[in-house]
Amino acid sequence: MKFLKSTLTSAVLLLACAGSYAQQQEVVDTAVFARIRKAELNSSQIPQIAHYITDVSGGRLTGSPAYTRAANWAVATMKKWGLANAATESWGTFGKQWEIQDFSIMMRAPYPAQVRAYPNPWSESTNGLVQGEVTLITPSQAMDTTYLAAHQADFNGKFVMVVGSSPGTKANFKASAERLTDAELANLKDTYMVPPGMITMYLNYIKTFKTADVIFKKAGALAFINTGGGNMNGTVFVQGEYGYKLTDPETVPRASMAMEDAQKIKRLIASGQKVQLSLNISGKFSTDDTNGYNVVGEIPGTDPKLKSQLVMLGGHLDSWQAATGATDNGAGCIVMMEAIRLLDSLGLKPKRTIRIALWGGEEQGLYGSFGYVKNHYREGEKIKPEQAKVSAYFNLDNGTGKIRGIYAQSNQAVKPIFEQWFKPFNDLGAQTVTLANTGSTDHLSFDWAGIPGFQFVQDPIDYETRTHHSNMDDYDHLQIDDLKQAAIIVASFVYQASIRPEMLPRKPLEKGGFVFDGF
Amino acid sequence: MKFLKSTLTSAVLLLACAGSYAQQQEVVDTAVFARIRKAELNSSQIPQIAHYITDVSGGRLTGSPAYTRAANWAVATMKKWGLANAATESWGTFGKQWEIQDFSIMMRAPYPAQVRAYPNPWSESTNGLVQGEVTLITPSQAMDTTYLAAHQADFNGKFVMVVGSSPGTKANFKASAERLTDAELANLKDTYMVPPGMITMYLNYIKTFKTADVIFKKAGALAFINTGGGNMNGTVFVQGEYGYKLTDPETVPRASMAMEDAQKIKRLIASGQKVQLSLNISGKFSTDDTNGYNVVGEIPGTDPKLKSQLVMLGGHLDSWQAATGATDNGAGCIVMMEAIRLLDSLGLKPKRTIRIALWGGEEQGLYGSFGYVKNHYREGEKIKPEQAKVSAYFNLDNGTGKIRGIYAQSNQAVKPIFEQWFKPFNDLGAQTVTLANTGSTDHLSFDWAGIPGFQFVQDPIDYETRTHHSNMDDYDHLQIDDLKQAAIIVASFVYQASIRPEMLPRKPLEKGGFVFDGF
Repeated sequence: MKFLKSTLTSAVLLLACAGSYAQQQEVVDTAVFARIRKAELNSSQIPQIAHYITDVSGGRLTGSPAYTRAANWAVATMKKWGLANAATESWGTFGKQWEIQDFSIMMRAPYPAQVRAYPNPWSESTNGLVQGEVTLITPSQAMDTTYLAAHQADFNGKFVMVVGSSPGTKANFKASAERLTDAELANLKDTYMVPPGMITMYLNYIKTFKTADVIFKKAGALAFINTGGGNMNGTVFVQGEYGYKLTDPETVPRASMAMEDAQKIKRLIASGQKVQLSLNISGKFSTDDTNGYNVVGEIPGTDPKLKSQLVMLGGHLDSWQAATGATDNGAGCIVMMEAIRLLDSLGLKPKRTIRIALWGGEEQGLYGSFGYVKNHYREGEKIKPEQAKVSAYFNLDNGTGKIRGIYAQSNQAVKPIFEQWFKPFNDLGAQTVTLANTGSTDHLSFDWAGIPGFQFVQDPIDYETRTHHSNMDDYDHLQIDDLKQAAIIVASFVYQASIRPEMLPRKPLEKGGFVFDGF
Repeated sequence: MKFLKSTLTSAVLLLACAGSYAQQQEVVDTAVFARIRKAELNSSQIPQIAHYITDVSGGRLTGSPAYTRAANWAVATMKKWGLANAATESWGTFGKQWEIQDFSIMMRAPYPAQVRAYPNPWSESTNGLVQGEVTLITPSQAMDTTYLAAHQADFNGKFVMVVGSSPGTKANFKASAERLTDAELANLKDTYMVPPGMITMYLNYIKTFKTADVIFKKAGALAFINTGGGNMNGTVFVQGEYGYKLTDPETVPRASMAMEDAQKIKRLIASGQKVQLSLNISGKFSTDDTNGYNVVGEIPGTDPKLKSQLVMLGGHLDSWQAATGATDNGAGCIVMMEAIRLLDSLGLKPKRTIRIALWGGEEQGLYGSFGYVKNHYREGEKIKPEQAKVSAYFNLDNGTGKIRGIYAQSNQAVKPIFEQWFKPFNDLGAQTVTLANTGSTDHLSFDWAGIPGFQFVQDPIDYETRTHHSNMDDYDHLQIDDLKQAAIIVASFVYQASIRPEMLPRKPLEKGGFVFDGF
């Protein structure tokens, strides 16, 4: 899940029609729900799917060989299962492919010692193994390009490091993983909805970072090193907002260091020690294929009148690259693949066509889903005919936690419908339908196009504290039982949407909306 | 703190005299206690001492340059403060000095990716950067030298890895750091007391590991890699039980890998992938000085009759080397140095001489304190004259947590004394005097020699879950406020012991006892 992302919809509540929707009675196919549940609990393939998406593919940075491995595996697997139209589908141009080839780092002075660090994605390579002294700048100096330009001489032949204050380890007195309480579920608020003003501010930050990195490059700095977020305990958040576009300028090599090691270096310098590092970042860029790709596949509908209509489910397949993107968003893809496998393997006969989509480029700005929506449903203010045929899009992208409910995304009319669909799953802890909005992931693209797009409410586990965008986001941090529960619910919801007499009710389409085009 | 260590004393309780001791009234110098407390809270030097012992010195493996840096700094600092007789003092022969010079590791196939690993201390070096395939053995195969000898051909040119089952991340639902509850304090039991049978078993394990590593060496394996204990979240426990003795055989290079990465490799191999690693371990051995050293320093007593008597305080200065040994046992040394600095800087006039000792070789088997005791107090069954002159030895070695009480180590007579000394500190959470025994650290050497030796009860914080012997044991994991509290209490106890009319009561000396002489 991208943390900062377009709102794409306003948070306007559609209160006018609330009364009339509440009375509708859903015919829920609980027999099928029970078959899905039993099948998942008896013969889940989640561990295998998870292994291939995480371990075997690797960190699935958009456009990377790892992403391609995962996409190709997903297509082949869906074909093997017997899904229709399994294929990769380009959403348009993405940019450069990049993959780390070799990396090493050591503190060399005042004494040799290991430090924990990761190259930032799309980092330039160092000139082989380089060694030099560390010079510190403050976080505010790092944002002041005038200051940096005036002090270029200080950076020549140096590792430029920016280190804020130590966050300490007080957080360790609280569990890093948790589940939502009943009180929290009853009071869900809008979350991850980022107002346009904050996006603009963030884009300006990114522009500043880019300018600064070009200054460091010109100044002859060896690399720019940051602390990868404010966490402790060896958890390093490693992301990168630019460097993949064909037009991006050449910058200094960039890496993120564990907070403990960075703080140690800061203290050593403060007490008068000269600190030297050696660093080798060897990355491989390629422009052989600059397109971005999603993965799609289908179970064709069986009702002659309804099979041209779609129920969609998806998550984003791309991740960051310091780990293997297990919870962000391997988890979502694992659950969605397992859900469609369940539906297919049970020989169910959905009336509408069920289409899975695994998105690329989500972390760079919902590129995959937004490009898909532009190609199929809405381009600018132009609505395309296919838009009328999609009943709903279900998304999963809040980590490895089980499903506790769903964000109705201000769609009052679906609230009583989903509440009835959740009834058979109340014993699994899933029942909350909130009108609150959630943002920062791919259902927003559909919402923008006027197609009902939903993200489920999930237990947080240790998504925000440890795995999200970090070097800890590996297979072992998946809660397999939670993913099974989620697959059961998603498969049931998707199936129910496919046999429901009517498509799901829509909110009125809004004009405009913030169109995010990446950093 | 060494985890498995000699009991040295039995857990026999001396119930016979309990009644008579309870009536004694202590004259506690609460005015001095208050001065100590105020001085520490107003002008603590704990952050600076901690910085020099951890950051500036580095991982203080016994006999390493880092240990020497720390020892020399401690001597120079005590001299600067004006302590008497500050010096290093050899306890006898230790063995080889070793320091890591360079280290790097990458997964090379099926795709390039970073993995987290650390060389085991005293590891042989690889032949530069070596690359090869991983072959897995099970934990039981790793312990079966007959099996290993019969399968040498499988290890040639390979990285031999032993990976058990994944511990999972269920523990993340519990805080990694915690404090003792009142109920826990009221029910303290013997802890870290290891029966001789278990030590024998452990020594046999070590012998097996050593034999196995010689087999791997002969087989032409590139390295032996284990998972460094059973933890998750990037925490790697890195220790090594041999390789420093002049008589130790040459073995294969050894490293410890983060559990997540090792489990990933195990799953990749299980699903038919060939996994390749590249590894460079470059360590530097030296036999320029094979002695082991403690650090000592004194505040001379001022009472003509009592100044030949001693009150001692200490902790072990050596640590493991994957981090900087902040909580094991930087913390103990920091507190003890701060305590003696406080006493000295306040110009107090202790009647008995106060001697600090920072021990080396604790992690290899209490070498420093046991050697010191052998040189000064008891050698075999022979008691030396100095033994009669030591009132008590106070030790701190259970991490960074504040003091909650003290282990009276079955010494019934001191219980009511310490209870009175603790009274002024009850508001700081310190009051529990338990007759229970604690082991695995340096007070045991004194206890064995018939000198009252005590270890304080400390809040566990995240010592067992995260920092103890791990790559996380850095400065930022110190709880500075806890260390201040501990310094206040230790300084007060030591001062009170120095002015008390009588020396502290002793338990009857026991004959024999397990003499541990390292691996």
